[in-house]
Amino acid sequence: MRISQKVKKILDNYESDNPGTKANLARILMHGKLGGSGRMVILPVDQGFEHGPVRSFAANPPAYDPHYHFQLAIDAGLNAYAAPLGMIEAGADSFAGAIPTILKVNSSNSLARAKDQAVTGSVNDALRLGCSAIGFTIYPGSDDQFGMMEEIRELAEEAKASGLAVVMWSYPRGGDLTKEGETAMDVCAYGAHLAALLGAHIIKVKPPTGVLFQDAAKKVYEKSAIPIASLADRIKNVVTSCFNGRRIVVFSGGEAKDEAGILAEAKAIHEGGGNGSIIGRNSFQRPREQALELLEKIIQVYQNKG
Amino acid sequence: MRISQKVKKILDNYESDNPGTKANLARILMHGKLGGSGRMVILPVDQGFEHGPVRSFAANPPAYDPHYHFQLAIDAGLNAYAAPLGMIEAGADSFAGAIPTILKVNSSNSLARAKDQAVTGSVNDALRLGCSAIGFTIYPGSDDQFGMMEEIRELAEEAKASGLAVVMWSYPRGGDLTKEGETAMDVCAYGAHLAALLGAHIIKVKPPTGVLFQDAAKKVYEKSAIPIASLADRIKNVVTSCFNGRRIVVFSGGEAKDEAGILAEAKAIHEGGGNGSIIGRNSFQRPREQALELLEKIIQVYQNKG
Amino acid sequence: MRISQKVKKILDNYESDNPGTKANLARILMHGKLGGSGRMVILPVDQGFEHGPVRSFAANPPAYDPHYHFQLAIDAGLNAYAAPLGMIEAGADSFAGAIPTILKVNSSNSLARAKDQAVTGSVNDALRLGCSAIGFTIYPGSDDQFGMMEEIRELAEEAKASGLAVVMWSYPRGGDLTKEGETAMDVCAYGAHLAALLGAHIIKVKPPTGVLFQDAAKKVYEKSAIPIASLADRIKNVVTSCFNGRRIVVFSGGEAKDEAGILAEAKAIHEGGGNGSIIGRNSFQRPREQALELLEKIIQVYQNKG
Amino acid sequence: MRISQKVKKILDNYESDNPGTKANLARILMHGKLGGSGRMVILPVDQGFEHGPVRSFAANPPAYDPHYHFQLAIDAGLNAYAAPLGMIEAGADSFAGAIPTILKVNSSNSLARAKDQAVTGSVNDALRLGCSAIGFTIYPGSDDQFGMMEEIRELAEEAKASGLAVVMWSYPRGGDLTKEGETAMDVCAYGAHLAALLGAHIIKVKPPTGVLFQDAAKKVYEKSAIPIASLADRIKNVVTSCFNGRRIVVFSGGEAKDEAGILAEAKAIHEGGGNGSIIGRNSFQRPREQALELLEKIIQVYQNKG
Amino acid sequence: MRISQKVKKILDNYESDNPGTKANLARILMHGKLGGSGRMVILPVDQGFEHGPVRSFAANPPAYDPHYHFQLAIDAGLNAYAAPLGMIEAGADSFAGAIPTILKVNSSNSLARAKDQAVTGSVNDALRLGCSAIGFTIYPGSDDQFGMMEEIRELAEEAKASGLAVVMWSYPRGGDLTKEGETAMDVCAYGAHLAALLGAHIIKVKPPTGVLFQDAAKKVYEKSAIPIASLADRIKNVVTSCFNGRRIVVFSGGEAKDEAGILAEAKAIHEGGGNGSIIGRNSFQRPREQALELLEKIIQVYQNKG
Repeated sequence: MRISQKVKKILDNYESDNPGTKANLARILMHGKLGGSGRMVILPVDQGFEHGPVRSFAANPPAYDPHYHFQLAIDAGLNAYAAPLGMIEAGADSFAGAIPTILKVNSSNSLARAKDQAVTGSVNDALRLGCSAIGFTIYPGSDDQFGMMEEIRELAEEAKASGLAVVMWSYPRGGDLTKEGETAMDVCAYGAHLAALLGAHIIKVKPPTGVLFQDAAKKVYEKSAIPIASLADRIKNVVTSCFNGRRIVVFSGGEAKDEAGILAEAKAIHEGGGNGSIIGRNSFQRPREQALELLEKIIQVYQNKG
Repeated sequence: MRISQKVKKILDNYESDNPGTKANLARILMHGKLGGSGRMVILPVDQGFEHGPVRSFAANPPAYDPHYHFQLAIDAGLNAYAAPLGMIEAGADSFAGAIPTILKVNSSNSLARAKDQAVTGSVNDALRLGCSAIGFTIYPGSDDQFGMMEEIRELAEEAKASGLAVVMWSYPRGGDLTKEGETAMDVCAYGAHLAALLGAHIIKVKPPTGVLFQDAAKKVYEKSAIPIASLADRIKNVVTSCFNGRRIVVFSGGEAKDEAGILAEAKAIHEGGGNGSIIGRNSFQRPREQALELLEKIIQVYQNKG
Repeated sequence: MRISQKVKKILDNYESDNPGTKANLARILMHGKLGGSGRMVILPVDQGFEHGPVRSFAANPPAYDPHYHFQLAIDAGLNAYAAPLGMIEAGADSFAGAIPTILKVNSSNSLARAKDQAVTGSVNDALRLGCSAIGFTIYPGSDDQFGMMEEIRELAEEAKASGLAVVMWSYPRGGDLTKEGETAMDVCAYGAHLAALLGAHIIKVKPPTGVLFQDAAKKVYEKSAIPIASLADRIKNVVTSCFNGRRIVVFSGGEAKDEAGILAEAKAIHEGGGNGSIIGRNSFQRPREQALELLEKIIQVYQNKG
Repeated sequence: MRISQKVKKILDNYESDNPGTKANLARILMHGKLGGSGRMVILPVDQGFEHGPVRSFAANPPAYDPHYHFQLAIDAGLNAYAAPLGMIEAGADSFAGAIPTILKVNSSNSLARAKDQAVTGSVNDALRLGCSAIGFTIYPGSDDQFGMMEEIRELAEEAKASGLAVVMWSYPRGGDLTKEGETAMDVCAYGAHLAALLGAHIIKVKPPTGVLFQDAAKKVYEKSAIPIASLADRIKNVVTSCFNGRRIVVFSGGEAKDEAGILAEAKAIHEGGGNGSIIGRNSFQRPREQALELLEKIIQVYQNKG
Repeated sequence: MRISQKVKKILDNYESDNPGTKANLARILMHGKLGGSGRMVILPVDQGFEHGPVRSFAANPPAYDPHYHFQLAIDAGLNAYAAPLGMIEAGADSFAGAIPTILKVNSSNSLARAKDQAVTGSVNDALRLGCSAIGFTIYPGSDDQFGMMEEIRELAEEAKASGLAVVMWSYPRGGDLTKEGETAMDVCAYGAHLAALLGAHIIKVKPPTGVLFQDAAKKVYEKSAIPIASLADRIKNVVTSCFNGRRIVVFSGGEAKDEAGILAEAKAIHEGGGNGSIIGRNSFQRPREQALELLEKIIQVYQNKG
């Protein structure tokens, strides 16, 4: 694998990592149609945990089969596939080496009342399954956030020592946060920054809205006249908040929406300097051919062809 | 032991498991009258924990003796016998190698108020007692569910590394779930899927009713016109929810009922593609001869003779 | 030590135990005046923890000295002496090898409000002090019961691996249990059964009353016409509940009472098939000579001379 | 070091301890002006934790310096010096071997609301600092008492295995205890007995008052006509409660009081059979010369010269 | 590195530390413009955790980049740079050996409701990143304070064994403390003393106000006529409270203020015997040239040139 200059430059930002972790980051960055560009599209399939099997897969029944998602990610030329333990176990051998995988090691579900997740995988699991990274969600603001941060601290230390990369989903919620506050500009940037401070290699957040939630932050946004009118502006603020671009940031798509909406979002992410998209429901809940088509269009956005 | 083609095909679904775990799954699948068919009937005796000795065994006093259950499972030609620590310890030597055993490693009791279970056995216990698998109950929905999931995560990792199989009882309860919700179609499928995601090899759930509990799920069932009118339909939905059939699913019988009811349920399970039945109270609370007769009839259902 | 046939038969019930544990069970069963009979009388001195030193020992001041109890148990020809850490440490050398000892490894006190106990000893303590067994109390029904069960699970696994025996005090209390419910027939049998399921070698419970506490259990006692009129009947029900007699069950005496009451109780235990008595306050709160006399009479009951 | 007969006799009571622990007990018992007498005076300086630096040391500013206390204990000819981590670290080298030290390994402070203490030192700390013992406070009665007991259980096991002695401060408080109850005769004796049962080598309690707090205990004190009129009587009851004198018991002085009061207390302790005094505020809050004079007088009490 | 006499004298106060830890303390004390003087100025950048990226860095955007802070600390000739995991990781290689670093291993954030922090770094992290010390915050008074103290106890033991120094931020808050109480003279001195007792090498507190919060302490300040009128007086009281000057104490600057205020504070710290300043927001929220200028003036204060 010949590492591109763009990827080399990104890897250089991970100053403290061992060659094992850098190699795994490189695998993700060099894989698929966006390989070498420094941009990435990832397929995450943790919907089964979050919303149950029927809400996740009934719209496109072949997606009940874990192999479906491996194949979709490979055929679409994505950079990586992220899923919880059972999903990865079910295809780890058939697709060994075919695409970088990210083992999601904590998970919640919609039957739960706490703003927390259960640890459902380990670094050893990731290693035995040939994964390139572990994935972990934190809920900044939640009354359980300190416990979650201590879990990922321990897992991340072990992952890095084992040559794996660490991907953090930072989704503010709980505590004094309102529903609107969860995706507010300031809160989203704060969540992304927390993941960076916790040592994440790749940070996944939701695209921020134009809302400013914390009064003290609102004052600063206004005083410093930070532009947040367009999504691209807001993406830029998140990227800046991740060590001024020294950390990879990707954005999730949220609830299923129409193609135009998805592509507009990707363009804004690209324009704002985000490293890419992590597209779950919007891909696997469409028929396979439509999904491949959509993913191709998203990739073209990041190839400046969109 | 010559592995049948059907069993071979099932084992192939367990891509990530080591030969030790596959061998133990094979032992369960190849044992007894249903050996090799891909179907199974298991005898579980954790009623003593759940309801106490008298409610469990007074109806058929020989069942107070742990040896009774080993012998019943063997004589009935079942695939495996599952029980908690003390029950297995009391017959582990007399019946060593005579039938695959599953050590139930957590347990509740009807004196408890929490929707939780105590961890009452270990992987080391399973190994020293010659068991083929550990069994563990999760209560999706319970406020203690994340703790339970973290317990089985750790135990399952250790079990798999030690060449044991992992059986999960997934019984939604607690939290915002109503009594009716616990066995609702959507909740049951969700519970089964969670066990699959957590890395279970064999999943045990209750047969679902026609109720749909979560509004968001109800909409999808209706929109996708998923058939749930007959029990066979509902079983099929559960099987689909377990990685589209890549994981073994067996169904418990619930409270003691009449023979006709039990056989009708088994037929529906078989028709819906379920892998079998796990029959506790309905077998050991009957006199031995009646129990053997009933179990034979259940087996015949799965042999397409019923 | 030549093991009697009766004891050999009892030891055979402990199928899964290693020779070390069987040897320690044999030491307890073969020691003292009842040695070899399969019956036993044990001296437990955990009253200091439970009620404090003055309430425990002021009635018979020599009993403030830990050596007193070792000597009493030896001179009375009992099978074993059970006490918490400090009490055993204080005489472990003077009486090394003179009588089997049971280290009580958890303890409560009457200053506490929680229905729980603190772990106050370890398997290593038992080994370094030359004990034959560890003793542990569970409170079935208490809101802390799962924690207690998980503590003994871990301690019992370690004890068995180290060749020690495990004695469980099963005293239902807390949660929804009323005072009357704590010693109800069904609850007591349930508690004994839970200890058996948790892997106890020797189970200690209180003699049950004729009360039936749980409705669901009451129905079964009535439907199955289980005799519970006499104490002997009730003892028999507890013995049956302990794997149909495959586990040793001994009964505590409760509060100090008159000699006639104690002997009547012992006769009922013996008649009902219980393995013996565990007599604390009723022995060490009497002057030594009276205690020896009483213990001799109790022993004679179990020798069929009473 | 030639061990006196009196000390030899005391050491013989610690039957289960290894030579390392006995040697450390001997060091404490043989050191200083009371060396060899079986009596001891100890300087404890945990006031900084409990009440803060100014309340502790402003009355005698040189006492802000940790070296002051080492030197005071040495010059006064005391048996040992007890203090928390930072205080011992600050003089461990300058005074290495000059006086036995006791590392206090848990601590509270007056900013706290819980009736609990934080573990603030370890057995490894005690070993690397050359201490002879660890010190630990339990609060019998507190809702956190079981947790505290489990902490000292683990620390004491490790300390004993490492050849250290274990000193327990037993200060009943919290739960249903009233302020008056904390130092009541029965509660104090109970607290001392709990420390003995938990395996303490040296027990530190407050001098009990004539109050009887627990009804059940009150009845026994009255029925058995246990004398508690004088402090010497009450001390005797505590000593008896510590395995009839098989464990060393020392008494704290409480709040600063006048010399006459302190000496009267020491005489009562001596007369009642207590092993000595542990004098903190009453020594280091006086000017050094006055403190040395007072400590000399206290020592003379225990030398039967007072 | 030739150690100055002043630094040698300070190091001698750390009697119990191994050469590794002393070497790391020496590195901090000998580095930068104040190297060898026994005084120090440290740059801490944990504002991102505490207040989020925008509130921390928007006033001076280059500060979004972690390299900015390393360079600022180096160019200003400071003694050390303290920051959480992600910030250190991002520059650890570029600036390896260029300035002593302190890894802040716990962190809070303004989305949290609990008066607690999450452990977000480890001793292993500090070692692999080439840090000289770990930093840890305690909140004396908080209902979580005992847990925090137990965390740093364990981390400090490991750090000291690994040759690292331990810096404690002691910020009283929570529990019964009022906002005013948090920085009260007595509370601040108490907090500093607690850090010293917990074994800190370097203690960081806020400059105390003239308020006296605890009644019992107030009486002693008044009775002993401790001067607290000027900030220098109050600093002196804190220094005295840290083992009479045997431990290094530095003071934080708090919210951004004008240059005159900052320099006046530094002069008072210097006059009162404090070891230096730890200046965060007041440096990195100014344009770089202004920050360098201000830091130079602060340094000159400690060089007696201010």
